[in-house]
Parts: sequence; structure tokens; C-alpha cells
Amino acid sequence: MSINSFGHLFRVTTWGESHGPALGATVDGCPPGVPVDEEMLQHWLDKRKPGQNKYTTQRREADAVRILSGVFEGQTTGTPIQLMIENTDQRSKDYGDIAEKFRPGHADITYWQKYGIRDHRGGGRSSARETAARVAAGGIARAALAALIPDLTITGYMVQMGEHKIDRAALDLAQVSENPFWVPDAKAAETWATYLDGLRKSGSSVGAMIEVIAQGAPAGLGAPVYGKLDTDLAAAMMSINAVKGVEIGAGMEAAMLTGEANADEISMGPDGPIYSSNHSGGVLGGISTGQDIVVRFAVKPTSSILTPRKTITKSGEDTEIITKGRHDPCVGIRAVPVGEAMMACVLLDHVLLHRGQVGENRGTIG
Amino acid sequence: MSINSFGHLFRVTTWGESHGPALGATVDGCPPGVPVDEEMLQHWLDKRKPGQNKYTTQRREADAVRILSGVFEGQTTGTPIQLMIENTDQRSKDYGDIAEKFRPGHADITYWQKYGIRDHRGGGRSSARETAARVAAGGIARAALAALIPDLTITGYMVQMGEHKIDRAALDLAQVSENPFWVPDAKAAETWATYLDGLRKSGSSVGAMIEVIAQGAPAGLGAPVYGKLDTDLAAAMMSINAVKGVEIGAGMEAAMLTGEANADEISMGPDGPIYSSNHSGGVLGGISTGQDIVVRFAVKPTSSILTPRKTITKSGEDTEIITKGRHDPCVGIRAVPVGEAMMACVLLDHVLLHRGQVGENRGTIG
Amino acid sequence: MSINSFGHLFRVTTWGESHGPALGATVDGCPPGVPVDEEMLQHWLDKRKPGQNKYTTQRREADAVRILSGVFEGQTTGTPIQLMIENTDQRSKDYGDIAEKFRPGHADITYWQKYGIRDHRGGGRSSARETAARVAAGGIARAALAALIPDLTITGYMVQMGEHKIDRAALDLAQVSENPFWVPDAKAAETWATYLDGLRKSGSSVGAMIEVIAQGAPAGLGAPVYGKLDTDLAAAMMSINAVKGVEIGAGMEAAMLTGEANADEISMGPDGPIYSSNHSGGVLGGISTGQDIVVRFAVKPTSSILTPRKTITKSGEDTEIITKGRHDPCVGIRAVPVGEAMMACVLLDHVLLHRGQVGENRGTIG
Amino acid sequence: MSINSFGHLFRVTTWGESHGPALGATVDGCPPGVPVDEEMLQHWLDKRKPGQNKYTTQRREADAVRILSGVFEGQTTGTPIQLMIENTDQRSKDYGDIAEKFRPGHADITYWQKYGIRDHRGGGRSSARETAARVAAGGIARAALAALIPDLTITGYMVQMGEHKIDRAALDLAQVSENPFWVPDAKAAETWATYLDGLRKSGSSVGAMIEVIAQGAPAGLGAPVYGKLDTDLAAAMMSINAVKGVEIGAGMEAAMLTGEANADEISMGPDGPIYSSNHSGGVLGGISTGQDIVVRFAVKPTSSILTPRKTITKSGEDTEIITKGRHDPCVGIRAVPVGEAMMACVLLDHVLLHRGQVGENRGTIG
Repeated sequence: MSINSFGHLFRVTTWGESHGPALGATVDGCPPGVPVDEEMLQHWLDKRKPGQNKYTTQRREADAVRILSGVFEGQTTGTPIQLMIENTDQRSKDYGDIAEKFRPGHADITYWQKYGIRDHRGGGRSSARETAARVAAGGIARAALAALIPDLTITGYMVQMGEHKIDRAALDLAQVSENPFWVPDAKAAETWATYLDGLRKSGSSVGAMIEVIAQGAPAGLGAPVYGKLDTDLAAAMMSINAVKGVEIGAGMEAAMLTGEANADEISMGPDGPIYSSNHSGGVLGGISTGQDIVVRFAVKPTSSILTPRKTITKSGEDTEIITKGRHDPCVGIRAVPVGEAMMACVLLDHVLLHRGQVGENRGTIG
Repeated sequence: MSINSFGHLFRVTTWGESHGPALGATVDGCPPGVPVDEEMLQHWLDKRKPGQNKYTTQRREADAVRILSGVFEGQTTGTPIQLMIENTDQRSKDYGDIAEKFRPGHADITYWQKYGIRDHRGGGRSSARETAARVAAGGIARAALAALIPDLTITGYMVQMGEHKIDRAALDLAQVSENPFWVPDAKAAETWATYLDGLRKSGSSVGAMIEVIAQGAPAGLGAPVYGKLDTDLAAAMMSINAVKGVEIGAGMEAAMLTGEANADEISMGPDGPIYSSNHSGGVLGGISTGQDIVVRFAVKPTSSILTPRKTITKSGEDTEIITKGRHDPCVGIRAVPVGEAMMACVLLDHVLLHRGQVGENRGTIG
Repeated sequence: MSINSFGHLFRVTTWGESHGPALGATVDGCPPGVPVDEEMLQHWLDKRKPGQNKYTTQRREADAVRILSGVFEGQTTGTPIQLMIENTDQRSKDYGDIAEKFRPGHADITYWQKYGIRDHRGGGRSSARETAARVAAGGIARAALAALIPDLTITGYMVQMGEHKIDRAALDLAQVSENPFWVPDAKAAETWATYLDGLRKSGSSVGAMIEVIAQGAPAGLGAPVYGKLDTDLAAAMMSINAVKGVEIGAGMEAAMLTGEANADEISMGPDGPIYSSNHSGGVLGGISTGQDIVVRFAVKPTSSILTPRKTITKSGEDTEIITKGRHDPCVGIRAVPVGEAMMACVLLDHVLLHRGQVGENRGTIG
Repeated sequence: MSINSFGHLFRVTTWGESHGPALGATVDGCPPGVPVDEEMLQHWLDKRKPGQNKYTTQRREADAVRILSGVFEGQTTGTPIQLMIENTDQRSKDYGDIAEKFRPGHADITYWQKYGIRDHRGGGRSSARETAARVAAGGIARAALAALIPDLTITGYMVQMGEHKIDRAALDLAQVSENPFWVPDAKAAETWATYLDGLRKSGSSVGAMIEVIAQGAPAGLGAPVYGKLDTDLAAAMMSINAVKGVEIGAGMEAAMLTGEANADEISMGPDGPIYSSNHSGGVLGGISTGQDIVVRFAVKPTSSILTPRKTITKSGEDTEIITKGRHDPCVGIRAVPVGEAMMACVLLDHVLLHRGQVGENRGTIG
């Protein structure tokens, strides 16, 4: 199974299984001279760390990241950065059952059909634990972006959990860090708490929608026509476990709109073009406009639930399965920092790509 | 602007501008011994050819494709296949206005901001004409797939135009080729005709949703975790002009579902696993299940409309623009064969990738 | 047969067969705003054009290059540049014999063994005609380098033909363009003329050694550890038809030297470090030092000769073959502009890579 | 500094510095079901381990390799394999001097000029210690090749040390493992011992020439025209520290030969084509012929010597340097297992590439 890498110039390769000795990310192409340390990365890892509250899996992982190479006296040297996270709490016995049975809606059966061998413990390579490595790599990307584009901010948050959507009118990014759901709407946070608590107790699970927004990115990022900024964002988000859909700006809604309604009208502001709206999600023709870059992705409910589901065994007998392991009632919660990390990696990659392919001589207006 | 290529082993590079002498695709990595000729490719190109009915741009292009290399005595040799389509009908004067003004919702402004130079004629490289090269390359992919997986079929169709959606209960793939909208619902075809006719006369435009389905693909295709089948499909579709969202199977709906509702239950059939439903869209953990592979994408309305829109000039003055050129009231119609072509390219690529990385020894069930 | 592309950011894909309708290069990643026209490229193509004197094949090709995309009003736009050269003089009948027999020392047999199908006419894809496309692409690279590093010069020349080597003491680059052998030594030019004339008349052929030197390249180019400048130069030169060896600086001689003899001592000059010698060939640890970059490669004699050689047929019978086609007694002559083109492509690629990965903040000395 | 990866389908990324906590290789694309364990890899690492005899650096490293991922119950799963080697014996004080001074002939100065920051301890990333990771990855490649092509053998040996060359007539591969120089000539082994002992005592160093031969590789490997088997071998060998030249088969000698002398004549044998000689080194047109694949590379003498050499400081003052650290009088010795490892990686990569791009339907003869 090749292709465990993504990125053009800022290239991240993740490795490791859910219940192996360790997992991590090999980060190649980070510019030299960027201040980086383990504390900085730990901050982001702690956001997705399991076992932090009753709404996420009770698996207890320190998720302590170590930098094994590429950083010297507190700065990146331009050499590959190896980030390692050791697995500490692996209750493999929890998974005895799934060695023989395939969980419906899970990668168990396809990994088996593709490779004829799989590390079934905790889903092995297909476990959401792989996303810890993405978050660590995203921390490196954030550090480099901070050095290159100081004003850039990246914020992820949930906009929907099951049937419950946030009230867009009440959207307040300051609320995101004030609740366990990363939801930018205080009222929603309360409703969701009650709702998810019920799901958790019944051993069920539910899907979610996450939005990630980048503010302060310059115009001109994106490599048409197959490395478009939105193309790479779509791939980055769709590669996250359990993601089934990705949209930019108006997204699926665009199918409903007329040309008049969809057009973001332009006028000249003191510092450049100003747009009357942002149906484009900050991307036109695959290149950033300078507006907020807005991406959303849908996460399906985890397939590990306590209700019995019909399935088959490796030897082909019909049977039923319930998953006793420790799981998230809504994996979407922990997908938020992962989405932020992917946004950071893609943006840094395109900042470096633009610098290499075009240099600084961008077109001026006015 | 680099990265005009996509694919891992089956690698397609498109080139050319809307009003240059020609455009085309350089196709590298097609297996040897595949029967290919120009007629075969022309069949697919004719599906997206403009000027075929009053619902598409009146620009008249023969879109005649020539094979310049890689095919010897009617078969591919394994060497790069060069496909060239000459541009014949270029009314560049139609575009005088947009040399100085940026069309809202169009790539005019971002190409200028990125490169400081752009071929404004007909949108240059950002024109939907680039998709003709994709369709030609898709024809090669289809020919290779026909040789490798005879039972595989790929079908694209519209499921929504503006507010109008098809009746899923009435879905009939036999209808797709019976109307100018590639819509699998005879009644919808009539309603849409009236609706689009009105839009066309008013010089407006509208978005659309396209679904592409692959039937007969084997289980085991996909290269986790960053070359997942759905990841590559998302990138492929998002790279098409005007696409703002992509989803697989249940897609965005997955955010609403519970684990119980989302799980596609499995039972053992005579020829292998049978699934009770297809929320996964034929992909689990980035690997094909053997079910139908189902992808949908939303196309925004073209920004070239007759209603005046506020915009600015290169020199930074506020102004208004209307686009007099010949355009599609619903570009989604011609996006259907393009979506099919991208599906074909991605599937062939993953068939070759699996063969190289894993070989034929897949895991067996029962 | 994939992998017809090379380069990281400046990416060249060549396509086409010796006796197909055309061949060419798809050039992706050229920065925008570079002045380019067909005359400029033709200048380089004419250097390697066949039939210019009695020392090269009598095949008469105009080798006229057309720019089909990527250039607008005399400047590159950053979009892919398609360069096409039509084949005009194809005496395919000359090759009837090699449809069934394999030429010893030629790719005939391996292409057949790999693909089970081959365009035998003139060697098809394996013909040295493919190098015309490299020279065209090299012309684009030279134009971009001229804009980015005005003082850079790239010069290729022969240093050996068969047993005859140049007199290093007499090396004079001004002589290179004064003789049909691109040899920087007037005396050698005379000797070689007599020698090669004899070979030509006897229908024999001979090998050669070419040296390509880049003067004025900045320190800091190269992407350790697998995209080292010398690694990419070695690959670029070895990929040229008939090349069997590549060396940098002292090259193979380095095996003989002691550490004391090999060390290029450093002292401080007015504009930076000065080296007492250049055993490194301008590359240390895969990164350019600012000295002349010196690469040499050995070209084997063409296998198309008039003396009968033992071989076999496709059906496995022992037989003999003589090649009646029009061939070069010393293909090394026409390899000179090809080596220059590859040097130009590799250098531009690394200039762009450095700009993207590191930016302008290089380390300063003093 | 990006591009720390090589390979197309079998993709190896090495990471780590000479005096960091650890170094290793991330191996992506190994087929599933290959038997692999740490002992197997340790066998190869021990071949290049330092401090084994008086002819190699006295630095004492266990070079113990750990498999952190990608192997389950003794078999590869198709997921990325992380190989880690911890650094144990780091006498950084030995290197105090080179923090400020640049060693002539060493990457010290170019890393500084490129990045403006470098881990000077032991050469950091540019240290030959990086090759330990290559050897570990090569062990994985050998295991996969053993499963795919049981008869394939890869053997590396020294053919020259300084002025001393082996006697080709006396070449005996059985001797390779019988002496500390991996030399296939018992007499040479004795002479070299005396010679190198003298060099070592005088604190000098010398270059070497290594030959690596692969026997039993099938015809048809290689991806023309920029992923030719010899192109990839040239890149692989040139990327090894201190290598200044690479040649295939007749190599540089080919420049001297006539077409008659160079042609390897072909006749039909019981199991396919038989060649009268092997000037091609087993590669024609970039594709393997089925003969022995023969590559040679020249290694320069280490620049770390006890004789004072003129150099400059970071602040630009002229000075002298002698390197007190523990170094190899002939790094070529330890380059032998590294060359073998690179050959193994390149061959496996092309076996997988051929399988993916062409499949099994090769052309038959007779």
C-alpha cells in the first residue's frame, strides 16, 4: 500500500498502526530557520487527544510527540523532520472478535480483500489514530506559516451534528474553544451535549459536518489545473478517515444558484479588491482570491456501535457483530483539529509552490 | 503554473488555451497492446462538443482529435500518447472587453494576480475548453479498462439543475442518452427543457449536480491513505472547472445519519459479499468494495451572463461588466462526459496501481 | 511505458516516435513572463539537426518547432508549453529488415521483450530523434535561466572520440563552434575529421566523451539527499540515448586520489570563497559551490553499422544483420547540444526548487 | 531541503542526522505478505557497521534497527514500514572545530550557503551515517525480491582502491566475504591491507571503485525514457555520499569502442537469447536484457584527514583545518553494502513498475 505521502513541496508521509509500537510523520520540505519545539506540537496534539471528556473514546493515550530529526538548536534545518508518537494504551483483547468478523461500514473487509493480510488490532492502519500524525505534521506547517504569513489564522469548528445545525446568525468563533464540540454557537453546545450524551449511553454514533476557515491568506495561491488550491483541499479532507463529502464556499448549494446570485461582485478597496460575498469560498479557477478560504467536510458516524449488525466472517459465514471497543459517539469532534492540520499543510505547500514557480512578481491591480 | 498532470501510473497532462492554435493531452502510462483509434476517441468528444443544441454554447468546434504518437498499427505501444485538438472557431473579438475587466466569479482576476500575465481570450487556460483534452484522455482510459475489466461500465448523468431534482424513484439509466441534459428521468427532461430555455433567453445561467456511477469494478482498488480511491476521485472532480463540491455515496447526508442507519450490512452471496445498502458509495477505507462506485459533484453557474455585474478594471477602477460571448446557460450539461472521463482515468490508474503494488493475490473470503 | 517526464518543478515530458507524424515536448512549470519565441528555440534545434554535414546521418529533417500553447504575446504565461516538431523525411522502407531482426546493441530486443509490441520504424520511441524534443525544451529552460541568472552560460563540447582525446592544455571554448565536432581544440578537429571520414566510408561507428560546463551558477543549488544536483545531472545525462557513464568533476579519477590531493582548498576572495582547484566539479554534498559545474558522459558507438553482426529473429532463428539506414558514424557529435539542454533543464529546475524550498535567505560568509 | 525520497512504487524516505537521537527510513510501497524481521535487516546493517576492524572509523555504533510499523506477525502488510536506528556513540566534542570552519571537499560550506543553518555535529545530514538507513531499506527490498524473483542475487565488491586495481582474470566472488575490503581477489586483499594500513597511520585517505552486479534479473525491467533502469541506477549510486561517477557495463570505455567491438552479438539458446559479451551491462534502451546487470561507481577519498588544509571560517577569515574526528581511511569499503542496497531498491521498484504498467504479457521470442 504505497502513497502514504501528500504534498508537493511540503511533503508529509504518515506511518504506523493503531496498536503497533509507535506511529508518526516524516515531514520533508519544511523551510530552514523555522522555530519549532515539541511543546508547540503537543499543543495541537492535545486538541485531538482521546479520553479528554465523556464525548470521546476512553482510550487513554498521552500522544506525546518526539522530534527525532530535522531540528537543531530550536530551528528547522531544512532536513526531514521525523515526528514519533508512541502507543501506550493498547487493549488489543478488546478486538479479538474483529479478527474474524468484518465490521459493516468499516475498512476491515476492504483491507482484507486488497492485501490478504491486515493488522486487525484497532483497525491497524485504517484507525483514526493515524490522524494524530497528521496533527503533529500540521503543527510544523503552522510554525512555518507563522514565519511566512504572520497574519494567517486557521480555525476549524463543527457546524452540524446529526440533525442539529448551528445558527449561522449566532456564529461566534470565540466560542469554539469554550465547549467540547468545537462549536461556534453557545446555545448549540448545550443542545448537542444532551443529544450526544443520549447517543453515547445507547452505544450509538452519529455523523457531523466540520468547517475550516483560513483568514489572511494572500491572493495567488493554487497551481492550476490539477493542483488547484480547492483540488488539493478536497483531496486532503477526503483522505481523512470517515469523510464522505467536501465542499468549498457555496459548495453543493451552487447547484441551485443562478449566475446572478452566485457572482461575488468586485469593487476596489483601499488595499485591493473587495468582494460583495464569498460564494467562491476564497478560490476562483483554483487560485486564492485573498478572501477567507472556506472548506466544509462531512464525517460519517463511526461503524463501531453496540447495536448488533449483520455481517460475515473471513470464512464466509453470515453472522452478527457488535463492537465492544472504546469508541467515539461522534468522531467528527476529533476530526476538527485534523481538518485544521490538513488546511495548514495544504496552504504551506502552496505558499512554497507559488514561491518556487512564480516568485514574488505577482500581478498588481491599480 | 505547474501541475497540469494527474494520475499515478496512468498519467495525463493537459495543455492548451481556449484560443490558441490547439489543445490536447499527453497520456503516459497506458499499457501496451490496447486497441485504440481516433474514431473511438471522437465518440466521447462528440458528447461534450459545443453547439450541438440550443442549450449549449453556440461556439462551433469540430473538436476533431488526432493521435500523434504512442499508437502503432491500431494498438498502444506503451509509449506516451499525444492527443491534439485544433481550435478552429475563435471569435477573439468577442472578448475584447474582458482584457481589461475581471468577470465576477471567474478566474480572470486570480490568474492575473498570480501570474501578472494571462491569455484573456476566452479565459485562456481557465476555459472549460481544457476539458475536451480530459475527455480525449478518458477515451484512452476507457479502451484500456475495456481490455482489463470487460464488465465495467461508467455512466454519468445530471441529477439536479437549479432547484429541479430528478425523481430517484423514476431513475432510468436508459433515458440518459435520450435527452440533451443526460438526465435519467424522462419527465424531468421535459420540465428542464422549458426551464433552461427561459434562462437562456434571459441571458442567465444556473448550476447543476452530476452523478457518475461505475458498475462492475472489482473490490480492492485504492491506495490508502493519501491515494484512496475516494480521495483521488474527489481531487479529479474538484479539478473540473466550476465544480464546488464532491461527495461519495451518502456524501453530505452522512453528517445526519446514526451508525445504525449508515452501516451497510453484509451477507454472503454466491459470488462473494452482498451489501444491504450502499451508503459507502462503493468505497470503505479508501478501497473499493465491489459495489457500484458512486460520486456526485456540484457545478456552479457560469459567470458569463448578460446581466450587468459590478467589477473592477486592471487599473483598479470600479465598473460594470456583461459578457457578450457565446456561453452555456448550464455548463453542468457538458460536465457530464467530463466527469465520466475523470472516473475512467482514476479507475484505470488504480487498477494499474493495485497490479503493481499488490499483484493478483488478493484476500479471499470463504 | 510511463515515466516520460523529468524534473521536479520545471517538468518536461517528451513524446513521439522516429517515424510517427510528429514528436515534441510538453513543458510544465516554466515561470510566467519569460520572453520566448520559435526562432529562439530553432537556434538550438539547428545545432543537433541531422544532415548538416557528412559526419552526421543524411536523414534530412527541417526539425521546425512550433509552440502550440503556454506563450502569449511573446511571453510565457505559466501554463504548459507544448512544443511540436513534425517528422517529414521518413524512409520507412529502409527499416523493413529490422521489423523481424534485432540489432545487436540496440533497444530492439528489449522493447519487444518488455511490451510485446514495438514501432520498429527507425527505432520508434528509442530513436535518438527523441532528443530533438529535449533540445526544444532546453531552449525554454535557457530562456528562463537568462531571465533569472543573466551571467549563467552553458557550454558542451567533445573531449574524446574513440582513442582520440583533446589536449586539455590547448582547450579553447572559442573553438567549439568552429568545427563540426564541437571540439574545443583546433588541432584535434583536423585529426578527428580524417579519422571519422574513414570510419564513415567503412560503414563503421565510434563512441565519444562529451563534457558540459555551466559557468556562473550560484552556490546553494541542489536538494539533498536524493535530488542532489549531481544526482539529477547523472540521471539526466544517463537518460540520453547511448550514454553508458556519467561523472562529475574528478569523476572516476577520484578513485585514485588521496584526501590531500582531492581536497579543493578554500580561501576568502573579494566576492566570497575561492577554491584552489575543482575536483568537486562544482558540487559538494549535492549542492553547488559557485564554481564551474562540470559533468562528462560517455556515448557508445551506434549499433547501426554496415558490418554484418550475428543476431536472432523474433521467431528465434539465428541470423545476421547489417543496418542499411542512414546513421551517424559518431552519435556523440549530436549528443553535445542534447547534453547542454539537459544541463539547462536541471539547473532551472533546481533554481526554482531552491526558491520554493528555501527562498532567498541563504547563509552568508564573512 | 525536500526530496529525501527515492523510488517510484517502492518509495524510500531516509531521515536523521549523524548526532541526533536517531535516524531511519520510511519505506512505502512494499508488497504485502513478505516475510520480514529485524534479524534479517540487522544482517545487512552489520556489513556496513563502523568500528569492525582497523580499516574503518572507530566510532562504535550498535546500528540496531527497529521495525516500528508495517509488519504484522512476521509479514509485511502493505502499509508503510518505519525503520529506526538510534544513535548511541556521539562524541560531539570531536567536532567543536568544524562548527566555525568548513572542511575542504566537504558539504559543510554548501549546506551553510544553502540553508544558513546546519547541524555541524559529524556532518549532520550530510554524514555517511545516513547510508545506514539505506541499508536497512535495502534489506526490505531484498526480502521482497527474494519472494518475487527467488534466483536473483546482488553482489557488491571493490575493484579499485587508489592506484590498486583487482586482477579481472582472478576475479572470484567467493572471496568477497573473506576479507575486510569486500575484494573478489585474494592477492589484492593482501596488498591493499598493507597499503591502507600505511594510509591510516599517516592520517590520510584514499578513493575507491565499487562494482555491484545483479544476476538472475529478468528481461524487460526499466521505464523508458526517463525512468530507464540505468538512469535510476545512476541516480541511486550518485546520491550516495562521496560518489563522483557512475557507469554501466563498458561505461566510460564505450567512448573508445567501435560499433563492431561494442555490439554484443546475439544467438538463440535453449532458454532464450544468449549474448556473446556484455558491454551493455545488461541494459539496452534502458530495459534489462536478462544478462548480468553491472554498475560501477567511484568514491572520492574522505575529506576528513589529519594533514592541515587551507580553508575559511564562517566569518570569512582564511585559516587551516585538520579533522581529529574518527574517520574511514577508505570510505569506499563501507560503500559496498550501500551500493548493494541501492541496487536492491531500484530493482524491486522496477519489478513493481513493470507489473503495474505492463503486467505479465511480455513479448516472446521463438
